[in-house]
Amino acid sequence: MATSTAVPKDAQAGLVIGFDADDTLWHNEIYYRQAAERFRALLGAYQAPEQIEKTLSEFEVRNISLYGYGFKSFTLSMIEAAIAITARQAPAELIDSILQIGRGMLNGEVLLFEHARDTLRRLADDHVLMLITKGDLLEQGNKVRRSGLAGFFRYIEIVEDKTPESYRALLDKYAIPARRFLMVGNSLKSDILPVLEIGGRAIFVPYEHTWAHEHADGRGRSHHEIEHLGQLPSLIASLDA
Amino acid sequence: MATSTAVPKDAQAGLVIGFDADDTLWHNEIYYRQAAERFRALLGAYQAPEQIEKTLSEFEVRNISLYGYGFKSFTLSMIEAAIAITARQAPAELIDSILQIGRGMLNGEVLLFEHARDTLRRLADDHVLMLITKGDLLEQGNKVRRSGLAGFFRYIEIVEDKTPESYRALLDKYAIPARRFLMVGNSLKSDILPVLEIGGRAIFVPYEHTWAHEHADGRGRSHHEIEHLGQLPSLIASLDA
Repeated sequence: MATSTAVPKDAQAGLVIGFDADDTLWHNEIYYRQAAERFRALLGAYQAPEQIEKTLSEFEVRNISLYGYGFKSFTLSMIEAAIAITARQAPAELIDSILQIGRGMLNGEVLLFEHARDTLRRLADDHVLMLITKGDLLEQGNKVRRSGLAGFFRYIEIVEDKTPESYRALLDKYAIPARRFLMVGNSLKSDILPVLEIGGRAIFVPYEHTWAHEHADGRGRSHHEIEHLGQLPSLIASLDA
Repeated sequence: MATSTAVPKDAQAGLVIGFDADDTLWHNEIYYRQAAERFRALLGAYQAPEQIEKTLSEFEVRNISLYGYGFKSFTLSMIEAAIAITARQAPAELIDSILQIGRGMLNGEVLLFEHARDTLRRLADDHVLMLITKGDLLEQGNKVRRSGLAGFFRYIEIVEDKTPESYRALLDKYAIPARRFLMVGNSLKSDILPVLEIGGRAIFVPYEHTWAHEHADGRGRSHHEIEHLGQLPSLIASLDA
């Protein structure tokens, strides 16, 4: 398995750098939090906010495997949760308001993280950039277009899931050796661990800022962590040293 | 633009054959028809079936650009239509029944068309097969897996839309010359015309059987039409002659 020190310099030249999108390049979670807040307000007459939140989360988790990710899945979960929370008394007006909350999520602007654009521009000079995002095809496609970042990426891949198998399939598809692949993202589970598992490298950019250090998974595979995207070009350059 | 007669024999060897999935390899429309029938029965107390059908169609069409294709989009459209049809009086029980209709669409078996499996097996010996289907990522991914046909395809592409641009992007991605590309599908708009537009070839397999003949779009580009998939291997072999 490749670590940052085990790979010879020449193999580093011209990396293929994969970027997660939601909450790595632009805000996403914030729109779900806002929608959930509106949902709690809408159902305030029926239950306490914490109970509403709990029920909604339960439906969300239960529905992920059935409905997948994205605002349509979330909207359907809100409707199901509302029917449960109101003991099957939810009036049509309330359901209609939920549909409006859902549609509102679509119209949110694509709010880029600081440094996102500059960092992509700098890295695109020396490396092949690939956007790898999980979720609803139409929704993610729209966000990519509206982000204004599409031009930096040679490949844009919207995938169902991010597992060692799905990363391996992507690399196979484009004949990219795992040692040349580096993934940048905010999720250990989706962006970091599966990539290390197949012998690639990974840089963790937590959504909630922590500090720069290196993690190991106990099996000799390691990744880097940075505070923000502005630190990425120099870290990647240092991998070459 | 390539037609079936203008391409020299050697360029025909080892085609890349794209296959549409829904209503080309397996039934899809039938599940939407069944769901719409249940929806009409559910709302029978409020309006005449034709009016219900009309309203549902209007919401479906209006929502395609917002929600995309697939059962989640259709479920949201059914809920919106029900609210309109009941003049905002739909009880929660009715909304819940609609959610169940939607979930029922997910559990439908993948019913392959006659000849689909045999034809793919025969063609896979001499050609590279690519599945190109439009729709919801999770839903289509699940259908591909459940179809048992995934192994015949070197590439499986779930796309947002099927336009000349999206086909060109696919061919560019895999460095496939358009003259080596042949698309098979049941939609003139999605599977045939855009492929002819970019210089590929196309074989139309209408969902409602007609008869085998050749169509031209008036600009010198032509495609073939067959009645069923069992006719495909011999037609493709004849293109080589």
